[in-house]
Amino acid sequence: MKNSIYVLLMVLCMLSCKPSNQKDNGLTSKNETTIDTTTISIKDYNVKPDGTPYSNSELNHMSHNELMMMVYEPPRDTIQTIGILLYDGYFTLDAMGPLSVLNHMSPTKKIMIGRKKGIITSSSKVKTQVDYSINDIEQLDILVIPGGFIETYQATKDEELLNWIRKIDKNSKYTVSVCTGAWILGAAGLLKGKEATTHWYKAEEKLTQYGAEYVNKRYTNDGKYWTSAGVSAGIDMSLGLIDHILGRNYASFTALNLEYNPKPPFEGGHPDNTDRVVTYMMEKMYDIGLEPLLKEDKNK
Amino acid sequence: MKNSIYVLLMVLCMLSCKPSNQKDNGLTSKNETTIDTTTISIKDYNVKPDGTPYSNSELNHMSHNELMMMVYEPPRDTIQTIGILLYDGYFTLDAMGPLSVLNHMSPTKKIMIGRKKGIITSSSKVKTQVDYSINDIEQLDILVIPGGFIETYQATKDEELLNWIRKIDKNSKYTVSVCTGAWILGAAGLLKGKEATTHWYKAEEKLTQYGAEYVNKRYTNDGKYWTSAGVSAGIDMSLGLIDHILGRNYASFTALNLEYNPKPPFEGGHPDNTDRVVTYMMEKMYDIGLEPLLKEDKNK
Repeated sequence: MKNSIYVLLMVLCMLSCKPSNQKDNGLTSKNETTIDTTTISIKDYNVKPDGTPYSNSELNHMSHNELMMMVYEPPRDTIQTIGILLYDGYFTLDAMGPLSVLNHMSPTKKIMIGRKKGIITSSSKVKTQVDYSINDIEQLDILVIPGGFIETYQATKDEELLNWIRKIDKNSKYTVSVCTGAWILGAAGLLKGKEATTHWYKAEEKLTQYGAEYVNKRYTNDGKYWTSAGVSAGIDMSLGLIDHILGRNYASFTALNLEYNPKPPFEGGHPDNTDRVVTYMMEKMYDIGLEPLLKEDKNK
Repeated sequence: MKNSIYVLLMVLCMLSCKPSNQKDNGLTSKNETTIDTTTISIKDYNVKPDGTPYSNSELNHMSHNELMMMVYEPPRDTIQTIGILLYDGYFTLDAMGPLSVLNHMSPTKKIMIGRKKGIITSSSKVKTQVDYSINDIEQLDILVIPGGFIETYQATKDEELLNWIRKIDKNSKYTVSVCTGAWILGAAGLLKGKEATTHWYKAEEKLTQYGAEYVNKRYTNDGKYWTSAGVSAGIDMSLGLIDHILGRNYASFTALNLEYNPKPPFEGGHPDNTDRVVTYMMEKMYDIGLEPLLKEDKNK
């Protein structure tokens, strides 16, 4: 469902890159720094002057330009480049979720940037060929840092990587983390004094360690720093970013193309709504993975 | 968040592969062929004999074996191999979503199978190195077929691919599609007389064409044939599959690791809850992509 949507999205974005006096439709809270993630019902908000929805027959009689102008919203920012960092051991969905959403932004160059060039292997053994390493990239409008587990912890000690992130952040419009990617942003010193979130495991402890203020939200932003909760939350955040930058119509096209209308088969996915025994065991298992590394670092 | 969870999941699965007399906890409807996707609240269902939840202190005093036996549920099936088909132009999240979920099944070999060996490029230009092509694989317990758009339509005419799918399906325990991957399953003749779903665009028309009965659900199954709605619905379906095969505790560990507690920034993702103008324009754009191919086929 890609080629044709790009025709649409490219035209939409070309329109949206022109200055315009058209009014915001009032659904995106464009003057707020921190975005409210409350679900809002938006069915049929592009309506006729009398407030009633268009019929298909009425829409069929409108020109392409008339339709385009109806869904046009002035963008908040012009985004020319989005880079997603990949390092061995990153969690697949942490990167591929946001990529699948942000890929709808157009005309925008989207690239994957490896810690090294060549093949990067995710935690679930997906081998991705990357054409750029961090040594090749000097500037990005949006930088996305996915999480993982052991390798993400190790990345928080990787000074060459952290220096690159600090450099990109200096001129980025948005610096973004998914899941434990916030540990890396924190280690780079970019979350000091900022509200942030991360994967639920040791969330408050880890963010406090980096001088950030943990907020228990699916995703949050503090100025240009956007952070999401664990793994799948990167999808919600990325859709939120499109909504923020390009407006509700553009975000709705994206959600519709991805059929992003999630209905998990059961309630869960966070300690707040998961059986206590399951959560307890999960935490113990994470501890078994992380504690040897923490001890090793203490003994250094 | 991977290495340590695998310690847990491997032990859980080793336990779960032994025959057991332990009772089903009643939360998974193991005798039903069609699974109800209604959300059920499951907070604290692993409880003490008196029905109250365990405190952390009580859990701390239990042995690893006691904890393991508490969360153990007899599996419905033993799954040794899962294969995800990749072809040029597949939609990234259609494959990477289910992979990220199903990767929690253990001990199970998970592989990506290319239409050809080498690099397969997704619709969002992710270049994945695959070690197996369809010519290398003779048997899979679970086959997952992701969707896409133009290239997926083309795959419905690819007799070599369809023959391979029919061969694998003969001995599979589950044959599964995500999004327009159902068009491919349909073209292989595997959905005749079966309930199925697919991406919302032309959903009923496409499935009827292949003799299937379209159901407007996030995901559905008819016996071993599981199909999901568009793109992101593959995540819900895959979690449903784990719930079905390995039980609610195992599925809850998976959801917790993925923090799969989705909270989209706005309502949308399906024509039923999206502005009519947005949906209308999206459909027109899909039509622009697909109609030349349909015409070409008619003229053949």
